[in-house]
Amino acid sequence: MSKISKIPHRLYLTEDQMPKQWYNLRADMKDMHDPLINPATMQPVKVEDLYPIFCEKLAQQELDAKTQYIDIPEEVLEMYKIYRPSPLIRAYNLEKALQTPAKIYYKFEGNNTSGSHKLNSAIAQAYYAKEQGLEGLTTETGAGQWGTALSEACAYFGISLTVYMVKVSVEQKPYRKAIMETFGSTVIASPSNTTNVGRAILKDDPSSGGSLGCAISEAIEKATTTPNHRYVLGSVLNQVVLHQSIIGLETKIAMDILGEYPDIVIGCAGGGSNLAGLIAPYMQDKLTGKANPRIIAVEPASCPTLTRGKYAYDFCDVGRITPMAKMYTLGSDFKPSPNHAGGLRYHGMSPILSKLYHDGFMEAVSVEQTKVFEAATLFAKVETILPAPESAHAIRAAIDEALKCKESGEVKTIVFGLTGTGYFDMSAYTSYIEGTMTDYVPTDEDLQRSFSTLPKVPEVL
Amino acid sequence: MSKISKIPHRLYLTEDQMPKQWYNLRADMKDMHDPLINPATMQPVKVEDLYPIFCEKLAQQELDAKTQYIDIPEEVLEMYKIYRPSPLIRAYNLEKALQTPAKIYYKFEGNNTSGSHKLNSAIAQAYYAKEQGLEGLTTETGAGQWGTALSEACAYFGISLTVYMVKVSVEQKPYRKAIMETFGSTVIASPSNTTNVGRAILKDDPSSGGSLGCAISEAIEKATTTPNHRYVLGSVLNQVVLHQSIIGLETKIAMDILGEYPDIVIGCAGGGSNLAGLIAPYMQDKLTGKANPRIIAVEPASCPTLTRGKYAYDFCDVGRITPMAKMYTLGSDFKPSPNHAGGLRYHGMSPILSKLYHDGFMEAVSVEQTKVFEAATLFAKVETILPAPESAHAIRAAIDEALKCKESGEVKTIVFGLTGTGYFDMSAYTSYIEGTMTDYVPTDEDLQRSFSTLPKVPEVL
Repeated sequence: MSKISKIPHRLYLTEDQMPKQWYNLRADMKDMHDPLINPATMQPVKVEDLYPIFCEKLAQQELDAKTQYIDIPEEVLEMYKIYRPSPLIRAYNLEKALQTPAKIYYKFEGNNTSGSHKLNSAIAQAYYAKEQGLEGLTTETGAGQWGTALSEACAYFGISLTVYMVKVSVEQKPYRKAIMETFGSTVIASPSNTTNVGRAILKDDPSSGGSLGCAISEAIEKATTTPNHRYVLGSVLNQVVLHQSIIGLETKIAMDILGEYPDIVIGCAGGGSNLAGLIAPYMQDKLTGKANPRIIAVEPASCPTLTRGKYAYDFCDVGRITPMAKMYTLGSDFKPSPNHAGGLRYHGMSPILSKLYHDGFMEAVSVEQTKVFEAATLFAKVETILPAPESAHAIRAAIDEALKCKESGEVKTIVFGLTGTGYFDMSAYTSYIEGTMTDYVPTDEDLQRSFSTLPKVPEVL
Repeated sequence: MSKISKIPHRLYLTEDQMPKQWYNLRADMKDMHDPLINPATMQPVKVEDLYPIFCEKLAQQELDAKTQYIDIPEEVLEMYKIYRPSPLIRAYNLEKALQTPAKIYYKFEGNNTSGSHKLNSAIAQAYYAKEQGLEGLTTETGAGQWGTALSEACAYFGISLTVYMVKVSVEQKPYRKAIMETFGSTVIASPSNTTNVGRAILKDDPSSGGSLGCAISEAIEKATTTPNHRYVLGSVLNQVVLHQSIIGLETKIAMDILGEYPDIVIGCAGGGSNLAGLIAPYMQDKLTGKANPRIIAVEPASCPTLTRGKYAYDFCDVGRITPMAKMYTLGSDFKPSPNHAGGLRYHGMSPILSKLYHDGFMEAVSVEQTKVFEAATLFAKVETILPAPESAHAIRAAIDEALKCKESGEVKTIVFGLTGTGYFDMSAYTSYIEGTMTDYVPTDEDLQRSFSTLPKVPEVL
């Protein structure tokens, strides 16, 4: 066993050291991503267009590409302090197990009942809704992490919440539903009979397992047809990227205290919320020419948005009722396989991240789920945290980079985001242990088929 | 919403501030608990008697009532640092929700994959087994927390582990089994056909849901009949009380930093491991006359060991193959109801705690499970940690004490132990939410029946 080292295993910032502002990455982007488009007018979305869907402060944040730092409201900070700062952990045991000279750090966001980083934005969104005097919110959830986080935030601020949960996730994770109900939310398996969108999908395919895109459509329809209600979303949106910057800001402060600067920053990528949050201050360094760390997005081979998708305008939902965003997309009709990383089964990607990837500021890799669970199981055994399948994608890539260092002898510093715990994913772990887990990679024909449904947008945009 | 206060929501010690020694409460007890008795000889157990069951260092710790502080081995400290120090949290939101003048703190031990404080002793026990060159360990688990913790520790140190899990828990918590298997353990539902004890019980009652006492018997039989194997136990034992003192030592250091001293210290009590660990330094203050805080053990009304049990010699297991301990007991034949707090369904209580309770150094209360889940649900909503049903017993009592302060206007300082998370207890939460949860309290006749099976021990002991 090794000697006790000087750099601690876990570094927690004090409350005084916690960031008091979110960082808006867009303010430092010289080339801005293309605007959201209102499909009714084919014109860039104006803030008033968003007011029927989002509460006003969030709609303003969505379109604000100028303000570099935005104050975190005191009520939000107060709730952050119940579970934040999250620890930055040196993975000494993983390093030992891999016999790598690399220094591996991870920012662990699973230290709260929602079990993931989603709470960072849920709190902000529930707070602004409360501030505006709304009665209730609707949302969708895939793996259940966002729904749980928002349930917590709504319970805390006293707002009602209806969650459309992807049906396949309800079946795989019954206890996720139970935990949201414990916090007082109403959970509906999507597609459902409670909306026009849901009814149409069920008519086509009564056994549909659902998708994030479909659940989004249902949640928006419900919010816009119920008085004094609005819709909230846990990823993809610019406002979410803003709120999640707390992850990266804390990480950078902690790394600075340790006198470390990462050579490589790694995050899993579904809609992009965790990744964008984690990398925010390091991307700022890249955009402003201060430093040039490698930034790697990791996605499932079964849903390869960045690595095999198109950079094009697309709807954010299956029902095609959202604004259109320019992003990497597999097509809103893409039907992902029932991979266990439910939170990464989304056809699109944050427009901000899409633009940065398109402009060469970050890399992307895709990994197959059996390789992901191999990494997850090793990690659990040596680091004693059971990772969520989503987060385990980042672990896989971090391990692969650390093994390259072992090969080359380089002492690189790697930071990855451990976005959450896998307590509600035991059926996935069981299938891995029992050897029944399979990998699925869409064929080129599958992708061509879903690309063909991309909306036509005038070239001038 | 309140102003941001000076005392932080969470206090984490730095690694430098972490205790380097366990505290042995017995060294400060003027009146010692009665010795373990070897049922074969009816004489006090000698350390050699224990060597076939426990590894040698642990057997020595079991009987060491003299050494006040025992160094924590460096390898154990190294693993502690993966998840420790655990936070001491000021429950500002709970205080606000209760409108109490009381200051409520809790020590949260759920910040690790096992989800509970059990890891503190599991690591020590797995380490000493490894040090002795053993190949494997056996144990039992009720709610699954101990089994999970020991699975983690054994995976870390590279020792095999067989877990006898109470059958009713296997059924209520299938994912607990899966998580232990993820760490490489073999999990067997108890009673089972793999031991003589199990076969005998199944012959009597093929539909037996099992009990902790029965699972203990099976695990001991398995360990003592398999070469180079030993048995380990997660509670009740003196060695476990020793290891768990890390909880209280950290709590006291953190409270000292905050300039606080508790008026009341509260812990749930099953076998006593968490409670004894949490209270250790405060009990020291009582034993040495330095201070006199109230100390309250909270147990389920369905298994009221301290509040309605007898202080008598009894076996620690159903199969009557363990040494006999003088403790509060409901009789090793007591069949607890299928209460959701599986970890508190044990017929006995730590001999150390039993003696301290008997001598008036602490109080005990029993609470019904619907009241416990009412407290758990409130706590989850305001503090955003979903508590284990076991821990929620302590929450219930802390809330009751805080409400008394509201009544009287007293500003008392309350500390309770939040031993773990309830991620694997969602079926219990579901039954509470759906209103199908029932309370069960044994009748006096039930208790008389199980008391009648207490072993006869010569008075002179």
